[in-house]
Amino acid sequence: MYNETMYGLGSHRSVIRDLFEFGKKRAAEVGADKVYDFSLGNPNVPAPDGVKAAAEKLLAMPDNTALHGYTSAQGDANVRKAVADNINARFSAGVTPDLIYMTCGAAASLTVTLNALCEDGDEFILLAPYFPEYAVFVKAAGGTPVVVPFDEKTFAPDLTALKNAVTPHTKGIIVNSPNNPSGTVYTRETIERIAAILREKSAENGTHIVLIADEPYRELVYDDIEVPYLMNLYPDTAVCYSWSKSLSLPGERIGYIALSPRMYEVNGVYAAVCGAGRAQGYVCAPAMFQYIAAACVNEKPDIEAYRRNRDLIYSSLTEMGYDCVRPDGAFYLFVRSLEPDAGAFSDRAKNYGLLIVPGDSFGAPGYVRISYCVSHDMIARSLPAFRALIDSYKK
Amino acid sequence: MYNETMYGLGSHRSVIRDLFEFGKKRAAEVGADKVYDFSLGNPNVPAPDGVKAAAEKLLAMPDNTALHGYTSAQGDANVRKAVADNINARFSAGVTPDLIYMTCGAAASLTVTLNALCEDGDEFILLAPYFPEYAVFVKAAGGTPVVVPFDEKTFAPDLTALKNAVTPHTKGIIVNSPNNPSGTVYTRETIERIAAILREKSAENGTHIVLIADEPYRELVYDDIEVPYLMNLYPDTAVCYSWSKSLSLPGERIGYIALSPRMYEVNGVYAAVCGAGRAQGYVCAPAMFQYIAAACVNEKPDIEAYRRNRDLIYSSLTEMGYDCVRPDGAFYLFVRSLEPDAGAFSDRAKNYGLLIVPGDSFGAPGYVRISYCVSHDMIARSLPAFRALIDSYKK
Repeated sequence: MYNETMYGLGSHRSVIRDLFEFGKKRAAEVGADKVYDFSLGNPNVPAPDGVKAAAEKLLAMPDNTALHGYTSAQGDANVRKAVADNINARFSAGVTPDLIYMTCGAAASLTVTLNALCEDGDEFILLAPYFPEYAVFVKAAGGTPVVVPFDEKTFAPDLTALKNAVTPHTKGIIVNSPNNPSGTVYTRETIERIAAILREKSAENGTHIVLIADEPYRELVYDDIEVPYLMNLYPDTAVCYSWSKSLSLPGERIGYIALSPRMYEVNGVYAAVCGAGRAQGYVCAPAMFQYIAAACVNEKPDIEAYRRNRDLIYSSLTEMGYDCVRPDGAFYLFVRSLEPDAGAFSDRAKNYGLLIVPGDSFGAPGYVRISYCVSHDMIARSLPAFRALIDSYKK
Repeated sequence: MYNETMYGLGSHRSVIRDLFEFGKKRAAEVGADKVYDFSLGNPNVPAPDGVKAAAEKLLAMPDNTALHGYTSAQGDANVRKAVADNINARFSAGVTPDLIYMTCGAAASLTVTLNALCEDGDEFILLAPYFPEYAVFVKAAGGTPVVVPFDEKTFAPDLTALKNAVTPHTKGIIVNSPNNPSGTVYTRETIERIAAILREKSAENGTHIVLIADEPYRELVYDDIEVPYLMNLYPDTAVCYSWSKSLSLPGERIGYIALSPRMYEVNGVYAAVCGAGRAQGYVCAPAMFQYIAAACVNEKPDIEAYRRNRDLIYSSLTEMGYDCVRPDGAFYLFVRSLEPDAGAFSDRAKNYGLLIVPGDSFGAPGYVRISYCVSHDMIARSLPAFRALIDSYKK
């Protein structure tokens, strides 16, 4: 009656969703103030004022048929120009509007890119720790995910393992920096080493491996850390962007794909992107939020709120004895589990009202992810629970 | 480097898009007032005032994190309740909110439904004349489209041909009434006959053929014509709805899938729908327009404007000698080509500034589609061109 794979994807809840449901039940039992939900990556910082101002200005237009009408499939021409101009002003990347394809958010950017590229037998490399949906998207496009482990000291990819993972079937690699779940920002040196390996292996195998840069967290970095613009370091790059986190618009589903003008056969790849969007039923990205994103393309998120959260949770947990890498970006803290099984650790944390996600589905068993895109107050209130949790392992 | 099928879909413009581009060029040459573009199905009637009012009310909320935040993957619970309540109030269908899945518009409703259902070797029946993207969507889901011809007198499906087209591999059938491109509304009797064939053949083959009701034009009917609610006539029905036409929001990509509570294994199918949406990267339908659609679920489109257009173009063309079926719904007039090759006819029409779409890609060679969702004034101004066109065939 139905497709078994799709049934599986729809009926097995993700660990994150399970925790979220548990939290709601637990809050009803013990009170919402005693549940500390660090499970979701839903920004708690409101959208900047510019979003509301842009929306109101658009709604005030005398005729709304253009506002709410179809845009061209690849996105409104002026919107694509605003995006290209913004990229070029910041990164001198030489992108043109006809290499921009507006999407319904980061997940759509990824699925459209993967469907545009993937042919039978293709492999896509995922660098652990990675966002679990990457594996879902690669398989749905007909590809095979190949996971490369990470260096547990730096959280950078294990480059020897990367070298060994590339085969003549490698079609692409997904790079996510700032990283979900670790909060790590890959250094320029790391990116350059990855690029060198891709170049060398592409030459060896006569292929063109596409670097898919998943960048929803690009604007969320602290302490003036550099986030290198990947298409400037490697020609065959597709940037998958979303305003979900940078403008706090995750529910509105708005983002883009930007192809490097230096990509091999770039016009063919762009046509395949248009074809994949069409085949998946993405007629155009939501029109009004295309215009809003273009109007707000230079707005900045309220980094300060996230930085204060990062500083509080990182310093407090480290002081208590937790082992965690200091996040330079995004709004996640990746903490070593206090027992080998991170699932069991997450379960024990529940007893203290702490909802934290085991790293297994991120390709990083032995760790948990803490999303600190929550109120500063909740973090402060949760600290005794984190202390009680670590103390429980000392008994 | 890229997927050849996707490249083909992205690089070969549709006939409709070709006409649109021609129109822009022609307008620059001879003046926009001498080009009569009847090619696109983009509503010219503005969104009702309720849309703007709902948007302004939502934007006035003190905290926008909930407004722009993720909804659950299947759609906000209150929105799904509003949709189910609306369906039940109008059609007594017994739909529950947990059988509603909010989508990014009709195309997404269709691709998600097809991906949820389709397994290797499955066939989907398309009733000519049909919207050309149906074939694209069926193939992208891994299925095979099987086209059933129509009765040239009534524009209803040829039921004998339908009976012969059903095989043990038939997974579904797409029914689109009011119909694009013909404007026909299938009568209750026609629907009952289709349902009887599906029932008989399902029993014979031990299958459950899903009737996929593509209903973006449900609210656009004239003269109080009845549009039967298909899940009340056939249990295994999935309704694919969109507010693109009924609220004039085509660019905002908002719609839903409603599964019949009487569908075989309905909870499994719903889970597969959720899984297909996830695999295609549809994290959730655009949040703010979910809330707007719920607030406007009882709003009516300005049918009167379309009815005036229908009356003018149908009566004028019929009087001139064109052979066309009187449309009861949607905003399309389907006209018999004045020569066997509708492409050649469409080309000749261009010389008179008339942009009309050949029916070949709709599975109806020998016809052209005229979209009358344009200004009444443009229709009036175009009439001499239509007269000159038919006269040119009398010489």
